[in-house]
Amino acid sequence: MAATIIDSSIFGNIFSSEAMRSVWSDENRTAKYLDIERALAVVQGRLGIIPADAAAEIARNCDIAKIDMEKLRVQTERIGYPVLGVVSQLNALCRDRLGEYCHWGATTQDITDTATVLQIREGLDIIDDELRAISSLLAELSRRHRDTPVIGRSNLQQAIPVTFGIKTASILAGIERHRERLAQLRPRVLMGEFGGACGTLASIEKGAMETQAGLMMELGLAQPDIAWHTVRDTIAEVGAFLGIVGGSLGKIAMDVKLMMQHEVGEVYEPYAPGRGSSSTMPQKRNPISSCYIHAAVSMVRQHAAALMDAMVADHERSTGPWEIEWIALPEAFCLLAGALKQTRFVLKGIEVDAGRMRANIDITEGLVMSEAVMMGLGPHIGREHAHDLVYDLCRQATESRRPLIDLLCDHPEVNRHLDRPALARLLDPSNYLGQAGVMVDKVLSRLER
Amino acid sequence: MAATIIDSSIFGNIFSSEAMRSVWSDENRTAKYLDIERALAVVQGRLGIIPADAAAEIARNCDIAKIDMEKLRVQTERIGYPVLGVVSQLNALCRDRLGEYCHWGATTQDITDTATVLQIREGLDIIDDELRAISSLLAELSRRHRDTPVIGRSNLQQAIPVTFGIKTASILAGIERHRERLAQLRPRVLMGEFGGACGTLASIEKGAMETQAGLMMELGLAQPDIAWHTVRDTIAEVGAFLGIVGGSLGKIAMDVKLMMQHEVGEVYEPYAPGRGSSSTMPQKRNPISSCYIHAAVSMVRQHAAALMDAMVADHERSTGPWEIEWIALPEAFCLLAGALKQTRFVLKGIEVDAGRMRANIDITEGLVMSEAVMMGLGPHIGREHAHDLVYDLCRQATESRRPLIDLLCDHPEVNRHLDRPALARLLDPSNYLGQAGVMVDKVLSRLER
Amino acid sequence: MAATIIDSSIFGNIFSSEAMRSVWSDENRTAKYLDIERALAVVQGRLGIIPADAAAEIARNCDIAKIDMEKLRVQTERIGYPVLGVVSQLNALCRDRLGEYCHWGATTQDITDTATVLQIREGLDIIDDELRAISSLLAELSRRHRDTPVIGRSNLQQAIPVTFGIKTASILAGIERHRERLAQLRPRVLMGEFGGACGTLASIEKGAMETQAGLMMELGLAQPDIAWHTVRDTIAEVGAFLGIVGGSLGKIAMDVKLMMQHEVGEVYEPYAPGRGSSSTMPQKRNPISSCYIHAAVSMVRQHAAALMDAMVADHERSTGPWEIEWIALPEAFCLLAGALKQTRFVLKGIEVDAGRMRANIDITEGLVMSEAVMMGLGPHIGREHAHDLVYDLCRQATESRRPLIDLLCDHPEVNRHLDRPALARLLDPSNYLGQAGVMVDKVLSRLER
Amino acid sequence: MAATIIDSSIFGNIFSSEAMRSVWSDENRTAKYLDIERALAVVQGRLGIIPADAAAEIARNCDIAKIDMEKLRVQTERIGYPVLGVVSQLNALCRDRLGEYCHWGATTQDITDTATVLQIREGLDIIDDELRAISSLLAELSRRHRDTPVIGRSNLQQAIPVTFGIKTASILAGIERHRERLAQLRPRVLMGEFGGACGTLASIEKGAMETQAGLMMELGLAQPDIAWHTVRDTIAEVGAFLGIVGGSLGKIAMDVKLMMQHEVGEVYEPYAPGRGSSSTMPQKRNPISSCYIHAAVSMVRQHAAALMDAMVADHERSTGPWEIEWIALPEAFCLLAGALKQTRFVLKGIEVDAGRMRANIDITEGLVMSEAVMMGLGPHIGREHAHDLVYDLCRQATESRRPLIDLLCDHPEVNRHLDRPALARLLDPSNYLGQAGVMVDKVLSRLER
Repeated sequence: MAATIIDSSIFGNIFSSEAMRSVWSDENRTAKYLDIERALAVVQGRLGIIPADAAAEIARNCDIAKIDMEKLRVQTERIGYPVLGVVSQLNALCRDRLGEYCHWGATTQDITDTATVLQIREGLDIIDDELRAISSLLAELSRRHRDTPVIGRSNLQQAIPVTFGIKTASILAGIERHRERLAQLRPRVLMGEFGGACGTLASIEKGAMETQAGLMMELGLAQPDIAWHTVRDTIAEVGAFLGIVGGSLGKIAMDVKLMMQHEVGEVYEPYAPGRGSSSTMPQKRNPISSCYIHAAVSMVRQHAAALMDAMVADHERSTGPWEIEWIALPEAFCLLAGALKQTRFVLKGIEVDAGRMRANIDITEGLVMSEAVMMGLGPHIGREHAHDLVYDLCRQATESRRPLIDLLCDHPEVNRHLDRPALARLLDPSNYLGQAGVMVDKVLSRLER
Repeated sequence: MAATIIDSSIFGNIFSSEAMRSVWSDENRTAKYLDIERALAVVQGRLGIIPADAAAEIARNCDIAKIDMEKLRVQTERIGYPVLGVVSQLNALCRDRLGEYCHWGATTQDITDTATVLQIREGLDIIDDELRAISSLLAELSRRHRDTPVIGRSNLQQAIPVTFGIKTASILAGIERHRERLAQLRPRVLMGEFGGACGTLASIEKGAMETQAGLMMELGLAQPDIAWHTVRDTIAEVGAFLGIVGGSLGKIAMDVKLMMQHEVGEVYEPYAPGRGSSSTMPQKRNPISSCYIHAAVSMVRQHAAALMDAMVADHERSTGPWEIEWIALPEAFCLLAGALKQTRFVLKGIEVDAGRMRANIDITEGLVMSEAVMMGLGPHIGREHAHDLVYDLCRQATESRRPLIDLLCDHPEVNRHLDRPALARLLDPSNYLGQAGVMVDKVLSRLER
Repeated sequence: MAATIIDSSIFGNIFSSEAMRSVWSDENRTAKYLDIERALAVVQGRLGIIPADAAAEIARNCDIAKIDMEKLRVQTERIGYPVLGVVSQLNALCRDRLGEYCHWGATTQDITDTATVLQIREGLDIIDDELRAISSLLAELSRRHRDTPVIGRSNLQQAIPVTFGIKTASILAGIERHRERLAQLRPRVLMGEFGGACGTLASIEKGAMETQAGLMMELGLAQPDIAWHTVRDTIAEVGAFLGIVGGSLGKIAMDVKLMMQHEVGEVYEPYAPGRGSSSTMPQKRNPISSCYIHAAVSMVRQHAAALMDAMVADHERSTGPWEIEWIALPEAFCLLAGALKQTRFVLKGIEVDAGRMRANIDITEGLVMSEAVMMGLGPHIGREHAHDLVYDLCRQATESRRPLIDLLCDHPEVNRHLDRPALARLLDPSNYLGQAGVMVDKVLSRLER
Repeated sequence: MAATIIDSSIFGNIFSSEAMRSVWSDENRTAKYLDIERALAVVQGRLGIIPADAAAEIARNCDIAKIDMEKLRVQTERIGYPVLGVVSQLNALCRDRLGEYCHWGATTQDITDTATVLQIREGLDIIDDELRAISSLLAELSRRHRDTPVIGRSNLQQAIPVTFGIKTASILAGIERHRERLAQLRPRVLMGEFGGACGTLASIEKGAMETQAGLMMELGLAQPDIAWHTVRDTIAEVGAFLGIVGGSLGKIAMDVKLMMQHEVGEVYEPYAPGRGSSSTMPQKRNPISSCYIHAAVSMVRQHAAALMDAMVADHERSTGPWEIEWIALPEAFCLLAGALKQTRFVLKGIEVDAGRMRANIDITEGLVMSEAVMMGLGPHIGREHAHDLVYDLCRQATESRRPLIDLLCDHPEVNRHLDRPALARLLDPSNYLGQAGVMVDKVLSRLER
């Protein structure tokens, strides 16, 4: 009986994904604890810090299936943290008190932080996959609509024509930057923790640094130079990354929902029977996925701020700030995973109405082409004069509701230099797309490298 | 397999409460939908808008036990919202197609918003109970420690003595203001929603306003003057209230954890065997509850901001902002419930070490009493001269590590007017508590009114 | 040379207002310190706590014009807080060392907090005036457009017709709730601070409570039961109020910018030559004010969260959290003042194009009236059958791009019961506005009470 | 008359720095516009896109001293953006209407965004310098206090001894990661904008891409593959970076203020006469800088969230989100600059009381050494038995208030194996510092590479 939207049996798959929920589940977190305890025992057995049979016995019992989760709940509620409960259950599972050698020299937060990093690694893998998929979909759209004219909008006003391809390619450029960020933060963030009570590893008399090195090697994580129990920039960095990725998804959702308006009708979220429709309003086709994306990323950015708050940690092990991460990190990952999933769904099945895009360029009766006309007239009558003349004719067109081309054709200063076909060419949006194609190509070419 | 800390089977009861999770559970939300559909049918049956037997049949089937939750999940994932799924299941449960009359004239958001308000009502009741309990506990502490001296601290520096009672009573005054706020916001917030597709109730030809009035009467909610589908100040107000209450709890947790420091040792969270202790560091007594409180309220204030973001809704039914509430509201309530529970636990069993409090006043060897000495000497040698002389002796005391009283007794300008017993009285913190008791009494007296 | 947008000589009047900046200016803050010192001296002189001539001399010199602000800067940078600098300058201004009696028994935070409350009072007055003005403008629009049809939009999709009056009246209802909130929070928030170093007023031997009472009377503020140096719910409450008001303005801005889209064109921000226009794109009319509002309120909600953070104060005088208020409070007030000013400007001069509104209802060729047609056919052929039939014809209309009315007229089951004029009546949006007018009247009638 | 704390003539240098305020000043922003217009003219002149004498004349007049700022304010209030005002003033300054060739093919946002990037570059340089300085100071402290014992604290409880050097080195490791982040984000973020009205550069018939390339070369910025008018991840990334750096500073401030407590007294902010002191409480030494840092970074993280919100931009030029950056970016930079300055000040003059650190280790009468004793006894009597025995003696020590060493010496199972000198060695904190020195060295060695 879940209370959060993420774990809701009704909404969970809408606002998150099963894969990401699994990463942050009680089971996976506890399994990670066991993975680390196993790796620790193995390494310390190898180094002769603990007896070899203890290492083997511990490793044999590091199995999530053997953990009594209800008992763990009770232990956690009593102690405040679950690691000791797991260690005590593990200990009890081992024969001949060999379990006493588990968790040797470790502190609760060593295990918890390292588990979190392992979960982050899995979470980032999912996000990386989604970003890759979104990148491909955007590349495909950019290629297909490299030359599809659509009106460019500035301040929600029609400005000048662009292409649908340049819209998607500019977003794609941002997604690619996210992938670069991810590649850069991974080695920094995927660093284990193993420092003992206050980071000095005083609890291991001999082989402390070798244990640390071996453990991290075993887990495939970077070895830290020094404990980071209360130096949390890497965790906050992950939160910030999620928040910024969310911003890109929010931009996509914003454009999709604006373009799905009845009055615009240029793109549509994929259609499925019943999806986003209304029983009494057959004309409706709701941008359902875009709604979810908008909401999810609005939360994730606040989580990013909370994770920065969590950095204000005291001394060697913090008193409250750390627990902020416990709440914020899983939610940020889960909500972003939902938003990524919905974005991918939208981009995969998006319906593009190139005809309506073309038609919308015309609703101002040519006014959006005025810049092009000014530029075309400039060589003949001077740039500034062309500007004033066209600006004036535009105002007349608006007032008289006559197409701009008619007014241009009628004007002696214009028709002296340009006839109707010439003017029609100037007013043709496909002739005023500037470097749109070149820019799309530049973005796409970088992908292939 | 929950991913969030709130729904975690391990952490759920630490960071939230079962009662509050129930309020926001899938089951309770769905049950509220049915409560509203039942009330609507009953009222419309009574008004003759739908047939009486339809009303009876619908009411009879508005039973959460009859809803197939798995089917509802599938329906919700398809349509985007769960209300239509519930209505369709309810419809199917009714004999003779009488179910066709359910949901008459309503729109999805009418049911969802009204359900949310019913859940808010239940959530606020829990919070009210907790605030009441916390208020009583703080009142009890304020009464008991009305005259218990403790050093007042400013900028984490010892300043002048106060009482433990004035510390708790000042917090209590804030809690009482929260209760006043809650009383004021309830009638504003506990308002139902019933407006049809775009708030006009066009879907009900006759008896529209009567239906609305009757429905709200039935549910015990205020009747709205007008639809608030996209006017969300009342929801944001609830979020802000939760955030501000959280701030008060954060202050309590901050003081407790500071006073529990080894170097301070003035109060302790309640002791339970194993709780907040370490297996290898027997001297530790961790302020576990305070940690949880700190973390939870740090999140809640971000949720409050997210709920303000949700107010930026478009037109008659918003495209994304509304769904922010779905995520943020349950979490804010659940985390605050956890923080309230932990606060009540701390205050109920808090151990106050009045001896250590008294002893800590002396660690500056009298320097924290310098203001009192200045004031006591003033009438004899002039206020300003007294200030300079005492300030100077304080510096000497610090440098020579001698108690201030010895330096005062030795000084001719001082001992001319005041002997050691008189100086000792001036240096006695219990004689320099000012209006602490009066102020505590003022706060307490307001409670009894 | 200002760095912030608020104090920018270029942007200041766009993102804030001169009146609100004055409230939070260095000069006004310092003047408030002097007002409080004056009131304190007057009251203490009256009570015989300080000599009458000292009181008079202090009062005479409490004049912002006499303060050397540059010297105050230097003092503040040295000490950390400006109050002692002001006191020392005031002291020096007084003859015969009578200035020694100023600031008697007060602590820095007493003066700072009380000054902040006086500034809040002035700030809230400005906000109240703006809310009142906005309320009137919305009432006027609601009255004028009580019956002006416009399409209601849900999820940015055309849904069913509503009136422009119900759009504005629903927002108005929220503004009126803000005014109620403001009335409720004022007595709670407009409470002075006077407690001495740690809130006990130990620094005043006799007449402490009388001084406190007299001071608050003099300043027109509520007397606190107890110090609130580190119990900051009232300040956070103000921040939350600003954030929530901001949410309402954000909603207005959102609707205006959506309705100003070329493809919609239903309302316009007031026109002024050059405003929001482009030199080369004459067709543009940018929703400039709406942009500013959107941005400002996006910040204010983050300030609201920061002010909740500031509540997590330690002991009797906090170590950092308090200073959050110094940053966040002035900014939140200034930005909201800017947003309110822009909102008032928009609402005052808003251009409503009722013709375009009416025309937009028709762009779906009648589909948005399908609910009305279903209801009108229901009594003749059964509600459910009517639903299915109309839904089916709507789909045909969409595919064939024929008006719905033609398909209805052609259909034997329909034309048997309803002829074209009857169908036209059903399809007329003005006949399907439900209780819109009634609801508008309810909101307006509450205003007049 | 500034309203914000940043621009306050009283507080400005406390909460920000003059250098950073200059970066974001009206003057510098406007000067950047002119730098860009000059570079554009020069490049276009060189490419033959505009006449060479126009380029020269424009370049000659791109001088901030020639701009009438008051006029610019009026223009900006009218138009909504300052760029056109600057262009029109520049135009008017040029002889023979050659100014008509300035701003050729550019749009307002091209200039504004590029100017912002230039300001960001200057702002990041300041931050880089501060990080470098802080890094050096922390390195120096880590070296000097590599072996200075101090109690490690976990959950604000004394845990086991560490060194002051490991405290500073762990923070240093985070600062070094910030410098790495900064190096990685610079090439991504320091990218200019030049795309014309909707990013296609349609406004330049020939030489569009060459102009863009030349302009960026001239300004020392990366050339964008595609317009980023509404793809704002790079700006949000800067905000997130500032927020995360702020978190590190918050951690430093937190530790300093906790260690400055009277009851702890281990480190002190630098002393300056009058600084952070109280006229009547001579014992106080307030952590003033730490307060400022705490408050500033609390705001910056909220700005980081606001900048993520600004990413949700619509179409080709956003309607409100962009303006969020105008407010949030300068403030985040200015407040972080203040926090960095204060942090550097604290670290430069920090007073470390190694004696008090050593003394504080003893306040538990040896209990914090229990882990060491357990480990030392282990080889003699078995690890687990040693644990239980020591844990038991610790409890006795607490209850009887006797030093742990006395109880150990008295116990037959202990004194059989270890005499008092041996026990004293075990209880000596300097013998239980584990790998602290090694870890400090690892962090320091990475610096030198």
